[in-house]
Amino acid sequence: MQQIALNSDLGEGYSVYTLTDERIIIPLIDQANIACGFHGGDPTTLMDSLSLCAQHNVSVGAHPSYPDRQGFGRRSMAMSAEELEACILYQVSALVGLAKIHGIAVSYIKPHGALYNDMMKDEAIFNTVLQAVSKLPNSLDLMILATPNYKDFQEKAEKLGIKLRFEAFADRRYTEEGALTARSQSDAVLSETDAIAQAKNFISGGSPFPVDSICVHGDSPSAIAMVKSIRALIPNEK
Amino acid sequence: MQQIALNSDLGEGYSVYTLTDERIIIPLIDQANIACGFHGGDPTTLMDSLSLCAQHNVSVGAHPSYPDRQGFGRRSMAMSAEELEACILYQVSALVGLAKIHGIAVSYIKPHGALYNDMMKDEAIFNTVLQAVSKLPNSLDLMILATPNYKDFQEKAEKLGIKLRFEAFADRRYTEEGALTARSQSDAVLSETDAIAQAKNFISGGSPFPVDSICVHGDSPSAIAMVKSIRALIPNEK
Amino acid sequence: MQQIALNSDLGEGYSVYTLTDERIIIPLIDQANIACGFHGGDPTTLMDSLSLCAQHNVSVGAHPSYPDRQGFGRRSMAMSAEELEACILYQVSALVGLAKIHGIAVSYIKPHGALYNDMMKDEAIFNTVLQAVSKLPNSLDLMILATPNYKDFQEKAEKLGIKLRFEAFADRRYTEEGALTARSQSDAVLSETDAIAQAKNFISGGSPFPVDSICVHGDSPSAIAMVKSIRALIPNEK
Amino acid sequence: MQQIALNSDLGEGYSVYTLTDERIIIPLIDQANIACGFHGGDPTTLMDSLSLCAQHNVSVGAHPSYPDRQGFGRRSMAMSAEELEACILYQVSALVGLAKIHGIAVSYIKPHGALYNDMMKDEAIFNTVLQAVSKLPNSLDLMILATPNYKDFQEKAEKLGIKLRFEAFADRRYTEEGALTARSQSDAVLSETDAIAQAKNFISGGSPFPVDSICVHGDSPSAIAMVKSIRALIPNEK
Repeated sequence: MQQIALNSDLGEGYSVYTLTDERIIIPLIDQANIACGFHGGDPTTLMDSLSLCAQHNVSVGAHPSYPDRQGFGRRSMAMSAEELEACILYQVSALVGLAKIHGIAVSYIKPHGALYNDMMKDEAIFNTVLQAVSKLPNSLDLMILATPNYKDFQEKAEKLGIKLRFEAFADRRYTEEGALTARSQSDAVLSETDAIAQAKNFISGGSPFPVDSICVHGDSPSAIAMVKSIRALIPNEK
Repeated sequence: MQQIALNSDLGEGYSVYTLTDERIIIPLIDQANIACGFHGGDPTTLMDSLSLCAQHNVSVGAHPSYPDRQGFGRRSMAMSAEELEACILYQVSALVGLAKIHGIAVSYIKPHGALYNDMMKDEAIFNTVLQAVSKLPNSLDLMILATPNYKDFQEKAEKLGIKLRFEAFADRRYTEEGALTARSQSDAVLSETDAIAQAKNFISGGSPFPVDSICVHGDSPSAIAMVKSIRALIPNEK
Repeated sequence: MQQIALNSDLGEGYSVYTLTDERIIIPLIDQANIACGFHGGDPTTLMDSLSLCAQHNVSVGAHPSYPDRQGFGRRSMAMSAEELEACILYQVSALVGLAKIHGIAVSYIKPHGALYNDMMKDEAIFNTVLQAVSKLPNSLDLMILATPNYKDFQEKAEKLGIKLRFEAFADRRYTEEGALTARSQSDAVLSETDAIAQAKNFISGGSPFPVDSICVHGDSPSAIAMVKSIRALIPNEK
Repeated sequence: MQQIALNSDLGEGYSVYTLTDERIIIPLIDQANIACGFHGGDPTTLMDSLSLCAQHNVSVGAHPSYPDRQGFGRRSMAMSAEELEACILYQVSALVGLAKIHGIAVSYIKPHGALYNDMMKDEAIFNTVLQAVSKLPNSLDLMILATPNYKDFQEKAEKLGIKLRFEAFADRRYTEEGALTARSQSDAVLSETDAIAQAKNFISGGSPFPVDSICVHGDSPSAIAMVKSIRALIPNEK
């Protein structure tokens, strides 16, 4: 049985827009992927999320995105490698600086939304993400989707000295081959019972890929309940 | 005679928008105030400007603004102290991180546009700027307008351990009392001859305030010519 | 007893951000003040809100704002009269065009947030708003805050041939003189019982100002309950 | 010999960003494609450009874009058909309303940048653009790239009752088959002499496609000179 962490995407609301009650979800997780202001969040929100992470000793990852606030970073954008690299470096730098003010060293990067998906299916984009990570002065890990062909990704990352972290989704259906079922499929999201069973499977090493972290959502009372059930399976040692 | 530096506001163009040929102006100055993406510039532009600064050994300052791209940061915004502080910290953090990639340590902050003006005339805003600077881990100086009542500003800054740098404008008319004539006045901008004479006066200590740096613009061939004349008055030692 | 309408601010969410379930609130109101994309909303959201208004025969007003998405239009911005006028005209034009596609003629304008507050306390800004309204080809009314000195506003509006509509807030405390208590005051928001009593008072003409419309919110189940109670006091005839 | 118009992309600067001196270029052209604020321009700029168009009796087209100000609308974005349609309708509506204030009826739509290119090579996107145009209450024409397979586009447009206008570029190299050479090719841009010769060829009907309008740029003194030469070939009758 391997040690698995729980992560969640946070810092994505701003002003009057609230997606999650972070005072509830942050104490339940190990790793917070914090928005960097390009798909959601604003400087005030990021400071608030980082403050909660510091308080609850939660590890922080930067969660950069395509520059698409209107579409919440969920729309692919045809950026040049140079533009995309600069775009990632800017966002991560902003978060690293804000985190430092709270005494936190950002430890990894997890791209958001369409950038995350594009990175998994387009080698050129994955390479650009790796280039960006390799240019940052701190040795940051890169969190990507756990996938059966994870070794292909690992090989490229290792050449640049970057450590990958693999995340899986408790509440999303996987095919027998270990691929994520598209959200557009009617059965893409699992019931709470099935999600908990799947989390157990990840924890016991039953998936066709290694899993370092499970991504959970805190955007509803039922989502919070599920996080609590999964948390109970993996006692954190904080 | 005091040693005076030349500074210029840069990194403010993006995509198809060019304000200055930075390959010409950067070699002529000592300090580049680089936009942080909230009033102008984008990540790619900032990387380009920083690269030129590294190449020409030019000192870099962060040039944060109100979040008003449409108005180029020239319109006051009624932000809360908390919002404004987070807004400054975010921008400076982004630039500090990008600069580090080019081997540059950002050494000071110079607020932009309406934020700069508001800071000079509204004590609460100056205090918020100081609070922001004091929270940054690096000991950054703060560049403000050289003014006869500079000691009032200095006193507040010193309480937080912040060193001020005073800048003056070669080509802007000052009143006899040492106040900047409003841009709306018809005679607010000096001729090239008068600007050079005024720069000489700053250098020889003839102004009613100390001057650490002279702000110059490179947005036209005649502006570049003026910078060259002023540069000749203050040989840099790079 | 005067005929009073119910209005609500809508179209302000976008992408993953939801503020209100508009399918519940729109059938309960007479007038929808629809965001124009500068403080909230995006083109898709506006189309959805307008579609619901068309379906439920709800009158539509344009709800323009300062260009401050990050601050949800709640921060005053020092725009020139020319900038502010163009900014209002752009937003209203966009909404008028989208509404036309749904067979709806926008019938009034209600400025949003800081622009609304500034218009009520700064004569120059009120005049700029009037100028903007007067330049629109359709004869749109202007909705402002019901206030004891409403005649001052009315006089200015009439000179430009603009009809004012006065709105009051059921759930906000008024001083005895008829001024709105600032939100920062601890008792600024009324209990549901008091709000319903205050609505009754507006309807019976008991306030020191005329009231054409009561502004209600639908951002929580209790808010919806309150709207239903107030709706019961003013049967709509749709 | 067919009557051909000259068009130019305008209204794309804002605040301190100037791309063209519109007071020079607008009197030289017949059709102004005016930005709608999503890739360039702001409400004030649009008003200024429209005012010049009214003054010089220049026909106005709406020039909508993907919502990508940072990239000047030059990066493809994976928007859903619903999002893209609403995005176009919003922008065109805004411009239609502002134009009306200047007594101008917008007469056509020309998509900008990446949206323009995508529309020419992706049938689904062209269909979405047509859908948007067909929903607008005014019968607006659609301006697209003149291309040897123009009949394929015309057929689809006619089904929705939309008239196409075909534009060609004087200063861009075409292959013998009539395709535009990619900008990335070293010889993609013609010399002034060749551009004028190519314009003559368009005018005399020598190209393998019909040409209703020639797109010209006014972003440099030499560009203006070229426009004047081409203008001399096609006397306008204003």
